[in-house]
Amino acid sequence: MTFDELSHQIFKKQSYLCVGLDTDPRKLPAHLLSEPDPVFAFNKAIIDATADVAVAYKPNIAFYEAQGPKGWESLQKTLDYIPADCFTIADAKRGDIGNTSGLYARAFFDPSATGLDFDSVTVAPYMGHDSVTPFLDYPGKWVILLALTSNAGSADFQRLPTDPDGTNELFETVIQTAKTWADADRLMFVVGATQAEVFGRIRAIAPEHFLLVPGVGAQGGSLADVSRCGLTKAGGLLVNASRSILYASDGPDFADRARAEAQALQAEMATYLKAYTS
Amino acid sequence: MTFDELSHQIFKKQSYLCVGLDTDPRKLPAHLLSEPDPVFAFNKAIIDATADVAVAYKPNIAFYEAQGPKGWESLQKTLDYIPADCFTIADAKRGDIGNTSGLYARAFFDPSATGLDFDSVTVAPYMGHDSVTPFLDYPGKWVILLALTSNAGSADFQRLPTDPDGTNELFETVIQTAKTWADADRLMFVVGATQAEVFGRIRAIAPEHFLLVPGVGAQGGSLADVSRCGLTKAGGLLVNASRSILYASDGPDFADRARAEAQALQAEMATYLKAYTS
Repeated sequence: MTFDELSHQIFKKQSYLCVGLDTDPRKLPAHLLSEPDPVFAFNKAIIDATADVAVAYKPNIAFYEAQGPKGWESLQKTLDYIPADCFTIADAKRGDIGNTSGLYARAFFDPSATGLDFDSVTVAPYMGHDSVTPFLDYPGKWVILLALTSNAGSADFQRLPTDPDGTNELFETVIQTAKTWADADRLMFVVGATQAEVFGRIRAIAPEHFLLVPGVGAQGGSLADVSRCGLTKAGGLLVNASRSILYASDGPDFADRARAEAQALQAEMATYLKAYTS
Repeated sequence: MTFDELSHQIFKKQSYLCVGLDTDPRKLPAHLLSEPDPVFAFNKAIIDATADVAVAYKPNIAFYEAQGPKGWESLQKTLDYIPADCFTIADAKRGDIGNTSGLYARAFFDPSATGLDFDSVTVAPYMGHDSVTPFLDYPGKWVILLALTSNAGSADFQRLPTDPDGTNELFETVIQTAKTWADADRLMFVVGATQAEVFGRIRAIAPEHFLLVPGVGAQGGSLADVSRCGLTKAGGLLVNASRSILYASDGPDFADRARAEAQALQAEMATYLKAYTS
């Protein structure tokens, strides 16, 4: 999916909601456990319930990898089921030396190799340019680079000063450097919703890049703050919610309750789109 | 495997060789392609040929992941085949927020979940303490944290100054900080052989920790330099070679040629153990 197509979907659906398919087999509603593939049955119901109010889906790969080969089969079926008008993100946080990153790119971008054909992969920046650029060798695919994450440990290294006068922190250097590797039509950055106070600094460096924003909901970030500081004329945000949607109920009504949660976020997003992009 | 057991194996075998099982299905000898699982058949032959001169095996997970679910099955069979006196490393470079890193830990450390029961996983430090410590919740298992990698991109961020007087670079801060999370009996660091000029600085910060050292062989690092600057009384090094062993020949003699390469490295290591640890 291109930058313009993603922007079009955002304004069409009046939503920049990304649903995180962090599906934990231990949290599934009891009535799904007799299905041949309970994880896929759950994801299918969540997608059916949210596809008109979400513009993106983001399976966190750890949840599938932790189930062994059958987890990868659930992931494949889930990806195949996501409608074509939704952007897809393999939240894998991969990164390795060049030839090896190329294999991770193949794993998520080359359907002839694994069956998977995601639009994008999240990538860790620590190993530098040759760990990231192999993902960009796949035409039309996106890299979503970790910049400033939503967790407590983000303070350990991402906030370290990395220049003599102490004005640039590591996450800012990461963004500035990565901008030389790809433009805003192939590269996004992960910025946690819990870090709303620095969205202004990030928009000063990266005024047009999409930001993938986890941390609204269970992690406590504010959708209002993130939207005010992060929205651009093209949209420019994908705000992820996972647990608050997926596990709104653990009963037979889980899909209806998930839809209600997603609709509430979409309705709030519509007001911010009107306020900040028009 | 404990610190003392690993040290014991190093002096018993007079070797700190780690064989990187970076098995590329496109590089297999032609006569293996008719096997039911050519990747496993290749790995089995490599392990048979090298297990008396290697103390560790390190499958890089990208090579298996890029083959879809059948790749994970080849990985499982390979891990099960590695002799118990060898240390096993899942070179996965994973890392995510706490609850999600816990799932990656389960994927590689909990055989009841996926079948895999590695001794250790390589982990990326960018997301900080809560992305790393969930791997340490598994008793007896090891984290091998990326510090200073062997690739060109290591200069982009790992070498940035991270304190006002510019004496500490990011990789040094990573090592110093991570030392507060675990001791040398649960934590190692990845340091590329191409970075031999900084081994002295690393040993000043981490005099006892094992270092996992890729980059000897195809990447051009010097085993002599790494050994002189990195060996400790307990050994303290695992030096990885992958392509130079695996692909020494692409004919029916590949295992014999792999053994010859591994034996040559082991013989050289024996001289360094004598010179620098006695």
